[in-house]
Amino acid sequence: MFEAKVKAEVLKEVVDVVSTLVDEAKFNIGKDAVTVKAVDPAHVAMVDLSLDRAAFDGYKADEGELGIDMDKMKEILRLAKSGDVISLVHDEEKNRLVVTVGNTTRRMSLVDTAGMSDPKVPSLNLPAKLAIRTEELRQGIRASESISDHIALKASSAGFEIVSEGDTDSVSHVVPKELLEELQCKDAVRSLFPLDYFSNMVKAIGSSPATTLFLGTDYPVKMEFKIAGGKGEVRFLLAPRIESD
Amino acid sequence: MFEAKVKAEVLKEVVDVVSTLVDEAKFNIGKDAVTVKAVDPAHVAMVDLSLDRAAFDGYKADEGELGIDMDKMKEILRLAKSGDVISLVHDEEKNRLVVTVGNTTRRMSLVDTAGMSDPKVPSLNLPAKLAIRTEELRQGIRASESISDHIALKASSAGFEIVSEGDTDSVSHVVPKELLEELQCKDAVRSLFPLDYFSNMVKAIGSSPATTLFLGTDYPVKMEFKIAGGKGEVRFLLAPRIESD
Amino acid sequence: MFEAKVKAEVLKEVVDVVSTLVDEAKFNIGKDAVTVKAVDPAHVAMVDLSLDRAAFDGYKADEGELGIDMDKMKEILRLAKSGDVISLVHDEEKNRLVVTVGNTTRRMSLVDTAGMSDPKVPSLNLPAKLAIRTEELRQGIRASESISDHIALKASSAGFEIVSEGDTDSVSHVVPKELLEELQCKDAVRSLFPLDYFSNMVKAIGSSPATTLFLGTDYPVKMEFKIAGGKGEVRFLLAPRIESD
Repeated sequence: MFEAKVKAEVLKEVVDVVSTLVDEAKFNIGKDAVTVKAVDPAHVAMVDLSLDRAAFDGYKADEGELGIDMDKMKEILRLAKSGDVISLVHDEEKNRLVVTVGNTTRRMSLVDTAGMSDPKVPSLNLPAKLAIRTEELRQGIRASESISDHIALKASSAGFEIVSEGDTDSVSHVVPKELLEELQCKDAVRSLFPLDYFSNMVKAIGSSPATTLFLGTDYPVKMEFKIAGGKGEVRFLLAPRIESD
Repeated sequence: MFEAKVKAEVLKEVVDVVSTLVDEAKFNIGKDAVTVKAVDPAHVAMVDLSLDRAAFDGYKADEGELGIDMDKMKEILRLAKSGDVISLVHDEEKNRLVVTVGNTTRRMSLVDTAGMSDPKVPSLNLPAKLAIRTEELRQGIRASESISDHIALKASSAGFEIVSEGDTDSVSHVVPKELLEELQCKDAVRSLFPLDYFSNMVKAIGSSPATTLFLGTDYPVKMEFKIAGGKGEVRFLLAPRIESD
Repeated sequence: MFEAKVKAEVLKEVVDVVSTLVDEAKFNIGKDAVTVKAVDPAHVAMVDLSLDRAAFDGYKADEGELGIDMDKMKEILRLAKSGDVISLVHDEEKNRLVVTVGNTTRRMSLVDTAGMSDPKVPSLNLPAKLAIRTEELRQGIRASESISDHIALKASSAGFEIVSEGDTDSVSHVVPKELLEELQCKDAVRSLFPLDYFSNMVKAIGSSPATTLFLGTDYPVKMEFKIAGGKGEVRFLLAPRIESD
């Protein structure tokens, strides 16, 4: 069984994160938390989200899993006003999720989770770690958009840099270590990433003012941030592109 | 002759209502009121609007009729600021409407009304009547949009309900009688309607906070609301769709 | 050499004006001012802009010229917040413009100016001169947009008028001399212009509350206004269309 009440704002954070990579996802329901692990169809990026039962206004659950269509959840979230609490009840007999916002009830068919495996989150030993204001990432992405489809993320003991190289123009967005909230980096590192994926991940950060990045050279980037006022956590992983010289 | 002055806001209410169903309409000019009766090209819906001479800031008229293009009126309304008074003068010699907003004058050709008959408003005996906050209708429509092209409007002694049934999902927006401003309904009624028409009619309600609905089973819905601060009235009729089981 | 600092707002005014007519332009760098003269590809309109060194927050320059792509400048301006100062440095060795906004640096290739001649600004003896609130021009343009692709600009000792004649409708926007800030006009004048060009020129006026127009009969219109708080000046010239009767 699964019966929960959750603020629309919290559910929106979850849906924004998960829908960045997949249209449908398996939500693993536990006694103490809901977790989602998913890989995008091109196998370039992974999300690992957990939302503690304390993030809910009400929570009664056995172990189980729900296959949820992200677009349908977005449609429901559009009906909610700020402060609204959304009720979610699993109708096991008809395998539907009954979602109620105010006076509106949607009976939503669930997606079959049989084909959805839980991806294994790789353990990576990434040598550089830094905490950065989300707004700096956004500005670096905006500056890069007209230059190239790729960006390089660089870190050194001096700070962090987003670089985009085009045929005629190049852009560099530098965040010196004084403007970083945390920086652990002995040797300089650099990896290249697809701009669209990285941009969408940063969009999904939402209102969290800061993000932690873990970087290496020609290694995936790991991005970590809190949701639900600290009662949930998100890890994104994004694979690097090989640089051709 | 026809010479009138009217606040832009009032004219906008009229144009929003009439343009919901038709691109061109015959405005019947009387000594004491302007009336418009029109049926949409698919003969699914009808509007019956009357605007008292008290809704105008100035009004001199003999009996007559003016064929008016709604898009041209919208273009003029876009030139008006809040509080502007629009002057309308019929130039009978050239059969044009001379419309003045501030320092701008548009001489607008009129549409031939020869082929425009006055539709007869059917007298319907609809057993259920209820007054509902417009915002509840809007929320019910928003919730239904992703589900189906049709909505069922239901009333009973317990209240009002908008229901939309899709292939996999369904939505119900319930307004219990405590939230209705008026409810007269002995036996439960239910009719199915095309969502796009009903949605456009509700959009045309504009700023009126409440609407009166008259319903039966497999009967048209009648929607009544005031415009021009009570100095005008609108009746919409919408034909039902037959439900196939 | 060219090293300058300029408020984003000032640079935006310049880019809005120049990009109204051309995608790329030759900026003539002088010791005391930057000037741009350009003709649109259809040879219908000309811009003559000058920006005094006092409009900059910092300015060191020898004589020279820079071929600048307007879209690239717009991309950079989108990164700037209100109040930001933009740094512009000519990297002569690589013939690039190094543009810095906050922590973001773009190295921008310059356009070859070899094929860009300096158009000669014709000396015109236009008999009518008037100063008009920009908002009146905007209203006249809005009113004309649905009527015709052309507008006539008229002046007489009584005032100024924008007229648009369509097949069925016509619009007239009259600004009597009492509403003009200045009017010098003995004999009535009238010329016809392409609406899209005139509309784009008026859009480029931006926040300047008033504009000076110089008019004749079947002659170009000259439009003059200040930018950069009076530390820069713009002259637009637009060729007339011949009226067919």
